[in-house]
Amino acid sequence: MTDLRLTALAASLPSTVPFVGPETQERQLGTPFLARLGANESNFGPSPNALKAMAASDLWNYGDPESFELRAALAAHLDVSPGNIMIGEGIDGLLGYLVRLFVGPGDAVVTSEGAYPTFNYHVAGYGGELHKVPYTNDHEDPRALFAKARTTGAKLVYLANPDNPMGTWHNGEVLERALDDLPEDCLLVLDEAYIECAPAGTAPDIPADDPRVIRLRTFSKVYGLAGARVGYAIGAPDLIDAFNKVRNHFGMNRAAQVGALAALADHAYLEQVREQVAAARARIAEIAQHNGLTPLPSATNFVAIDCGQDGAYAKAILDGLIARGVFVRMPFAAPQNRCIRISCGTKRDLDILAEVLPDAMKDAQKG
Amino acid sequence: MTDLRLTALAASLPSTVPFVGPETQERQLGTPFLARLGANESNFGPSPNALKAMAASDLWNYGDPESFELRAALAAHLDVSPGNIMIGEGIDGLLGYLVRLFVGPGDAVVTSEGAYPTFNYHVAGYGGELHKVPYTNDHEDPRALFAKARTTGAKLVYLANPDNPMGTWHNGEVLERALDDLPEDCLLVLDEAYIECAPAGTAPDIPADDPRVIRLRTFSKVYGLAGARVGYAIGAPDLIDAFNKVRNHFGMNRAAQVGALAALADHAYLEQVREQVAAARARIAEIAQHNGLTPLPSATNFVAIDCGQDGAYAKAILDGLIARGVFVRMPFAAPQNRCIRISCGTKRDLDILAEVLPDAMKDAQKG
Repeated sequence: MTDLRLTALAASLPSTVPFVGPETQERQLGTPFLARLGANESNFGPSPNALKAMAASDLWNYGDPESFELRAALAAHLDVSPGNIMIGEGIDGLLGYLVRLFVGPGDAVVTSEGAYPTFNYHVAGYGGELHKVPYTNDHEDPRALFAKARTTGAKLVYLANPDNPMGTWHNGEVLERALDDLPEDCLLVLDEAYIECAPAGTAPDIPADDPRVIRLRTFSKVYGLAGARVGYAIGAPDLIDAFNKVRNHFGMNRAAQVGALAALADHAYLEQVREQVAAARARIAEIAQHNGLTPLPSATNFVAIDCGQDGAYAKAILDGLIARGVFVRMPFAAPQNRCIRISCGTKRDLDILAEVLPDAMKDAQKG
Repeated sequence: MTDLRLTALAASLPSTVPFVGPETQERQLGTPFLARLGANESNFGPSPNALKAMAASDLWNYGDPESFELRAALAAHLDVSPGNIMIGEGIDGLLGYLVRLFVGPGDAVVTSEGAYPTFNYHVAGYGGELHKVPYTNDHEDPRALFAKARTTGAKLVYLANPDNPMGTWHNGEVLERALDDLPEDCLLVLDEAYIECAPAGTAPDIPADDPRVIRLRTFSKVYGLAGARVGYAIGAPDLIDAFNKVRNHFGMNRAAQVGALAALADHAYLEQVREQVAAARARIAEIAQHNGLTPLPSATNFVAIDCGQDGAYAKAILDGLIARGVFVRMPFAAPQNRCIRISCGTKRDLDILAEVLPDAMKDAQKG
């Protein structure tokens, strides 16, 4: 076998992606999951209007490389200019392009210990040096993040609000004030994947043209289109335009473009999903409490449940749930890994959770 | 405005993607095209089974990051192992990952003058140094490409068979023999996007495990799923596995995964499209000849038409077609830019072409 002439950077990277998908686990288990509550997908599904629009899309055509109509609709929705919006293949895809634009070998980047692994994967993938600060009381800590950005000279600092995997959040005003401490030459990557589930006031009031911040949002969560791969960035026009240097310009699925457009327009459906999410959060909390576990407050479409002991104990409960057909995930880093993370589901999904959780806990207690 | 702290490489790149989409042109014209014959999409559409499968896909779920089922089906179809197959967001997406893995600043890469611009975009995007050889008699020239790879120490050499934009091709045996001249440390990137339209024997007989070659194929052409974004690479397992170092692992649209699976299984539909493509090629050739132009032989779903003069003349005809509602494209580089490139279309599409081409030519002759 000829040795691959990879770049030195590529040669140094492991050939592993950050997540094992639920389908892989199903193949290992030899049976499909009964409830899919691990990836913060929207079990309530997308707007029927989105499904109709996608079915009518001419998939023999490439998608519009400008995603013109979707950008225009988002701009109107957000009261910004289309030049403030970039569409991409999910937040994951946009994070990849963003990191590529900013981060080269040795460049400093800051995130929280236990925050989104795919961001870290991209930073490592471009040779960046990742600096981490711990969560504070299960919240991402903007002041600590920005202070670390200052001492490391970071080009990017990542912060999710609301946070994944904990579900916690800051009021937007907290972030607005914290921005005063963001180093001038550091870009805040504000991941707002779950913003539509959060209380009013969670999104900070930052003008789209503010060069200090790029915001990332998605149709994968409450809009119910995770499998479509549509995310968007909101930022200053020159930053948004820079994506054209590197992006896979024909990368957007054409049906996804029209599906997102229809989903965005269906306000009534979004409202209904928000109510279902709120109800499901309450039910998950109730199930947790019924089993002596502590649900964390959540502004997302999932609930982190504090299992009250260490990571090994939480992992044992998680394994018990998975063995009983309930797909869930958990935080990667201590002490947040004392929790398991359960996505909002339908009544049927949560009935299954309620049924199997006691047995999963018994297994874990046996050790 | 704070200056963006882009990498030096990113700062040096223009903020422009290689293609202007037909939708952009429609917005400029203020009216939709009457016939879409410019992007080598399949105007005959995808298999109805693919549409059915996509409509039934649970798009609220992320796609399987392993694309396990599609890889297994392709492996069976090609009589290779799933470890020889990587699925990606079209050939464009896979080319991006491949270039990222191999090409760093200053690394040499070889292609043909006037060949696929998106490959060049990726090479430039990672700082590679692109070396070009001319076409020989409107064919890509493997010996010249491989000789240039040797003198430049290239890591990658790109060759499309059949070729885009000319539609010409080499018998597979020609490529097999030429491989003897491929430098040992250079990887051949063999783009076979149009292979399903080509005569038997066009695909060279190269074992999937051969470390010298990576082949790229797609569901965007005769399978009629350009808007779905599904391409695949065939290569040696360690090369295929290297994509896991960098790829957007949740990047595949879930509906596209099942749509491609259904399309692959519908042999009868593929056969029917192949016949439609052959008939459309003949009709395009006839229309060209009727107007005193010279169609080139084609093993693809398009026909390059030699307009008999220089690039400016061909461009004038192209402009005339576009102004009359017929979307077409043309080669970028001389002397191939004496041609326009017309994708196969339905009878209705080609009737429109036949109707407007004489007037487009009259305009061009007026100058």
